[in-house]
Amino acid sequence: MEAKCSSDSAGKPIRCRAAVARKAGEALVIEEIEVSPPKAGEVRIKIICTSLCHSDVTLWKLSAGPGAVFPRIFGHEAAGIVESVGEEVEEVKTGDIVIPVFQSNCGECRDCKSQKSNACTKFPLQLSSGMPRDGTTRFMDSNGQPIYHFFSVSSFSEYTVVDISNVVKIDPDFPIDKACLLSCGVTTGLGAVEKIAQVEEGSTVAIFGLGAVGLAVAEGARLQGASKIIGVDLNPAKFEIGKKFGITDFINPSTSGEKSVSQIIKEMTDGGADYCFECVGLASVMQDAFNSSRLSCGKTVLVGMEMHGTPLSINSYDILKGRSLIGCIFGGFKPKSDLPILADKYLQKMLQLDKFISHEVKLEDINEAFELLHQGKSLRCIIWMHK
Amino acid sequence: MEAKCSSDSAGKPIRCRAAVARKAGEALVIEEIEVSPPKAGEVRIKIICTSLCHSDVTLWKLSAGPGAVFPRIFGHEAAGIVESVGEEVEEVKTGDIVIPVFQSNCGECRDCKSQKSNACTKFPLQLSSGMPRDGTTRFMDSNGQPIYHFFSVSSFSEYTVVDISNVVKIDPDFPIDKACLLSCGVTTGLGAVEKIAQVEEGSTVAIFGLGAVGLAVAEGARLQGASKIIGVDLNPAKFEIGKKFGITDFINPSTSGEKSVSQIIKEMTDGGADYCFECVGLASVMQDAFNSSRLSCGKTVLVGMEMHGTPLSINSYDILKGRSLIGCIFGGFKPKSDLPILADKYLQKMLQLDKFISHEVKLEDINEAFELLHQGKSLRCIIWMHK
Ligand SMILES: [Zn+2]
Ligand SMILES: [Zn+2]
Ligand SMILES: [Zn+2]
Ligand SMILES: [Zn+2]
Repeated sequence: MEAKCSSDSAGKPIRCRAAVARKAGEALVIEEIEVSPPKAGEVRIKIICTSLCHSDVTLWKLSAGPGAVFPRIFGHEAAGIVESVGEEVEEVKTGDIVIPVFQSNCGECRDCKSQKSNACTKFPLQLSSGMPRDGTTRFMDSNGQPIYHFFSVSSFSEYTVVDISNVVKIDPDFPIDKACLLSCGVTTGLGAVEKIAQVEEGSTVAIFGLGAVGLAVAEGARLQGASKIIGVDLNPAKFEIGKKFGITDFINPSTSGEKSVSQIIKEMTDGGADYCFECVGLASVMQDAFNSSRLSCGKTVLVGMEMHGTPLSINSYDILKGRSLIGCIFGGFKPKSDLPILADKYLQKMLQLDKFISHEVKLEDINEAFELLHQGKSLRCIIWMHK
Repeated sequence: MEAKCSSDSAGKPIRCRAAVARKAGEALVIEEIEVSPPKAGEVRIKIICTSLCHSDVTLWKLSAGPGAVFPRIFGHEAAGIVESVGEEVEEVKTGDIVIPVFQSNCGECRDCKSQKSNACTKFPLQLSSGMPRDGTTRFMDSNGQPIYHFFSVSSFSEYTVVDISNVVKIDPDFPIDKACLLSCGVTTGLGAVEKIAQVEEGSTVAIFGLGAVGLAVAEGARLQGASKIIGVDLNPAKFEIGKKFGITDFINPSTSGEKSVSQIIKEMTDGGADYCFECVGLASVMQDAFNSSRLSCGKTVLVGMEMHGTPLSINSYDILKGRSLIGCIFGGFKPKSDLPILADKYLQKMLQLDKFISHEVKLEDINEAFELLHQGKSLRCIIWMHK
């Protein structure tokens, strides 16, 4: 792939186009903005393509609370080329192909060094609106006013600045749109299966919510050799799509009659699924997932983030016989060490990524991508930034 | 050990002494009762010694609800000699030394065959008051009235009848009082550490509740090489006792000042304990344990049974970064295959069991054992049935 970045721009602000969210829930506006040079430990990236994830939509809609920050540049699934690097950055250089990732991986903190965790303690995930190290923004609008960051990535801009802890270098020959897919949803689903649940051959799996994350769970379960992969979704169209990802059985809670989803799953699996994955982010669905898991050893993995703050209520008698409940972020994967492995699996044709791309648009049509995801019509819509 | 059982008694009812609970919370009464011969799949056992576990006390106090059944013979930690066996029993014979265990292990059901579970599906644990196969009782009082069973064991009787699924044969040379200890609390704590949490060398452990189960967790954590073992208990005397079991730090919530227990543990462990064990059985303590676990990878193991039915409330944001919550019963151990391994560890002097025995009484003094446990003065009180 072509990777030309003029080193002339290094150290200077860059004027470029970005899709700016001015108000909660309102269409993004394509504006010319100014992107400051990277400070120490930071990297300025020319974004080649980006895609839309549900977390973008969820936080874009949020009109109140500490997470509601505007104007803001959303976007956290992307791939691009390093334009320039700040001081102390040695891991990447101008021209490198990289994936910016919301999940930090400083490599030095206790959790980064531990094999048991992927949650960097030095730069913990927060709904921050500035850069990880100093909290300030690198974006300015044409009136000289600040525009805020999102999830340490902000990829809905032709150029962005990201901390080196949030950058993964990949092989320059790796297809850039597939690289983009590896930076959030798909990886989250795959990791939840492989790293967190450790689904084994012949086991039964139930997936609540068949968006890209849920379908990546299905893809992961298929790769691990699960014998039954049950998909649960309110959208009947998801069953046909789901089959391509290994879904063997489908339950639509709105048309399943008097029986509860957990009752149906218990009957289908002779007592409950070995592994249940919640990919919606609703406490009520988490409860359904937990109740659908096998009493003696069922694992429920929480992949979706509950944005309403509704707690999940667990009766200790229901967990006592051996069930477990596990949360994870980014599928438990450590970005810097695990993404290259996933990329390699794709190149070896073990992992299918192409089928997650349902649509492609140009930056100026980014609001279409929001519409498609909102209507449940797209899995991943690739947004090309410079075409 | 001496193991003489007259085979003359086989097939006939046996008259013997038992400590009968006539009413919730009232002192047990030593009565002469009649114990029927074992039916098909059952074993009649001469109990040599038994000990008192918190679950006995909890259910003895219970005056209402489906678990409140009287008159009843409590007791589920014991060891004894097979007096006779019913039809179809080939696994043990008259004279064998056995441990009756509340946790069934039929060996044939899906869960018994699975490596992932120890919860027998054929004879699931329930607060049943009769024999597992037909629900009837083998005990009759001197007026010909039925006395009910407890946890499929009912060891506060000189003779009891137990399903073969609840019987583990052990080496006749194994010290009988130590065998008794292996049948519930101590094993539960050891398994929670080794089998469920899989505590590894150098990790930090917090234990909520320092009864025999909690101290067995400490013993297990010490064996696994944990670097810090924090004990939490309202009884200050538990710290001195705890040291013998490997407790390195002690927190008394009633005297710890303004800081919450979870805050103190987070400070002691630089962010939260790797493993937290709830050994009390209170939803509020479960919450404390969960909150004390490391955000990025802390495991909370629920060992105590919540008898009030109060649910545990989990905010999904608190579990999202990699925490997990696991329930277990009998420490995840399968009685028939795992108890002989534990017994062997004791004989090889790896596992210390002797220090769990704090008191010994005769059957006629069984109410003293209740008093001692209730006052937090005893760990395990061995009740000798025939001395
Ligand atoms: Zn995402
Ligand atoms: Zn780190
Ligand atoms: Zn017990
Ligand atoms: Zn079984």
